[in-house]
Formats: sequence, structure tokens, C-alpha cells
Amino acid sequence: MKTQYYTASSVDGFIATATDSLDWLFQLGDVKDTGYPEFIKDVGALAMGANTYQWMLRHVINVDPSKPAAWPYQQPTWVFSTRPQESVPGAEIHFVSGDVAPVHEQMVNAAKGSNIWLVGGGDLVGQFYDVGLLDEITVQVGSVTLGSGKPLLPRLIAFPPLILVSARAIGSGFAELKYIVPRTAD
Amino acid sequence: MKTQYYTASSVDGFIATATDSLDWLFQLGDVKDTGYPEFIKDVGALAMGANTYQWMLRHVINVDPSKPAAWPYQQPTWVFSTRPQESVPGAEIHFVSGDVAPVHEQMVNAAKGSNIWLVGGGDLVGQFYDVGLLDEITVQVGSVTLGSGKPLLPRLIAFPPLILVSARAIGSGFAELKYIVPRTAD
Repeated sequence: MKTQYYTASSVDGFIATATDSLDWLFQLGDVKDTGYPEFIKDVGALAMGANTYQWMLRHVINVDPSKPAAWPYQQPTWVFSTRPQESVPGAEIHFVSGDVAPVHEQMVNAAKGSNIWLVGGGDLVGQFYDVGLLDEITVQVGSVTLGSGKPLLPRLIAFPPLILVSARAIGSGFAELKYIVPRTAD
Repeated sequence: MKTQYYTASSVDGFIATATDSLDWLFQLGDVKDTGYPEFIKDVGALAMGANTYQWMLRHVINVDPSKPAAWPYQQPTWVFSTRPQESVPGAEIHFVSGDVAPVHEQMVNAAKGSNIWLVGGGDLVGQFYDVGLLDEITVQVGSVTLGSGKPLLPRLIAFPPLILVSARAIGSGFAELKYIVPRTAD
């Protein structure tokens, strides 16, 4: 069981524009050509922040509000939000707030040995990192610079550094970088 | 002749900390193992901003002020600075300010067919990009996140996107990503 941050970012380290746009991303290639299909097979539970969840509602579920789309994940999902959130019919979504550690424990139990996917945003992932609950980071580095936007991971992780496991080009639109997060003394 | 931005950055897109520290960088590997030795052979002229130059003075030239080190580049260097700057004995350094285009022309003439290296910082490189004078970007992505710092390239380059030419791991400390900057209609 691993807790994995799997995301796409710009070369300059933004996962979305300041207004949460991903228009730059979808032109860059097909998710089927990345490691995503293999990755998602081993995911047993997901966590995301309120902004990411709201983005899903706007851009995936309610594109046509008269015909809402289905939630795209079979796995149970935990949404961290201090505000009340609209649910999605037929989806197992748990709305939570506060410390990530006890929620992580619930997720581990639900995942039954499979991995935990931290979808984002960056600060939520940082909260898992802060309490030693982040094992791996995979970034699909999209071939753009955004200049500003939502940060990949607003933390200093440098002493010791991350451990690069692999780097590969996926067409001309993505570089897939996989890292292990070092264990700090605890 | 190509105008190339060649630099190292963190995974989250910073080329230095907010206080211009590169301590995170030098632990990550040996520059000899990267593409740098091949890259520098084809460089005929360098440009850098005042902060980068000041960093060189502090960390390379004047580490021991009683025995200043030699300037590390044979090629002529253009330093963009609005303030007067101390020179380095024995080095061909031109201090300039203002628009980058006429300076680029001087550099092209001096480089005699070899490439032009934009050392940084990010905003100076952005000024070359703004006037269509940036051809290639090579980033040695170091295996750290910094959370904040000096930006890699504070510009939106997304429509059309950059073109990823190659991605490779250099040990566990660096991923070397090479991009072509698309020609926009001009």
C-alpha cells in the first residue's frame, strides 16, 4: 500500500491556472498513452480538496446539467472541505475536514491493500507530506509554462531530496517523472 | 545558431530560493554527468541578469576575496543590469541595459555561428521570448520541491505549447528535459 500524488503540471510547476483552467492540458496528449491506466488499476481510495472536487463537478459531472454524468471513479473518494458540498448520485464520496492522518487511516482500511491516490490540490498533498504520509509522486510534466497558477506542492522537500525513479517522454506533450519521497527520521 | 535557455530548476519550477540559494542543487549530482559538457562546447556568447551575475561574484569569483577566482567562461558575456557592476579581471563582460533585441544582435555577431546561452534569470529569458528570440529550453529538473523562490520562466507559453524533444533521468537527482520553443506567427 502506497500513498501517491499523481498529477499533471506545467514545466514551471503549476497544476492549474489561477482560475483553475486546464485548457492548456488537454491539448497535450491522450491520458491513455501515459502511465495512468496502469496507475489507476492499483488505486483503492482517492482523496481530493474542495477546489479539485468543484472542478470535477463543473467540468466532468455537470457539463450538461440536465444530464449529469456519472462519477468517473469506482473507488471510494474522500473530499476535504470546510464548506458543505453537493454530492454525486451513485458515487461513494465522504466529505471530511480537519487533520489528514485519521482520514488516511479510514482510507487505508477502505483500500484493502491497494494504493491511495492524492488527486490534489498541492496544499492538501502537502498536509499528507507534513505528517509523513506521502510515499510517491508522479508528475506528468506538460510541455507548457503558465507563469502563474496553482502550485504543484507548496513545500520544501530538499534535505534529503526526492529520489527520481524514472523519466520518460510521452510524445512531445508530456515528460513523466516518478519520485520516491524520502523517509525522514521519525 | 540557436538561442538556448539552459538551467536547473526544482520540480515545482524554481531556479533558486527566494534568497538566491542553490544549496539544494549541488547535492543532486555532478554537472559532468548531464548534457552540460556537450552543451557548453557549442556556446559562443552568454547573457545573464544582474542577480545571476551577483550570484557568480559571491559564489564563484569572490569565495576567497583575497584570491579571486577566474571567470569560468571563455565566451563573451553580456550582463543586463540597470546598476553599475564590478567587473572581473581578464573576462570579456559587457554591461548593458534596455531592450534585449539589439543586444542579441551584438551577441549573434560575437558568437560567429555558435549558440547563445541565456543563463537566467527567468524574467530576462522571458524578455527574449517576448520578442521571438528564444529557440530552445533545456531544464535539469532537480529532485526537490522548494515551495517558493525565483521562477523558471514567468511567461505563458501554452498556445501553441512547447515541443518536448527528449526526457531522461540522470541518476536519481536530475531529469533532463529538452524543449523547442514554437514559432508563433510573426
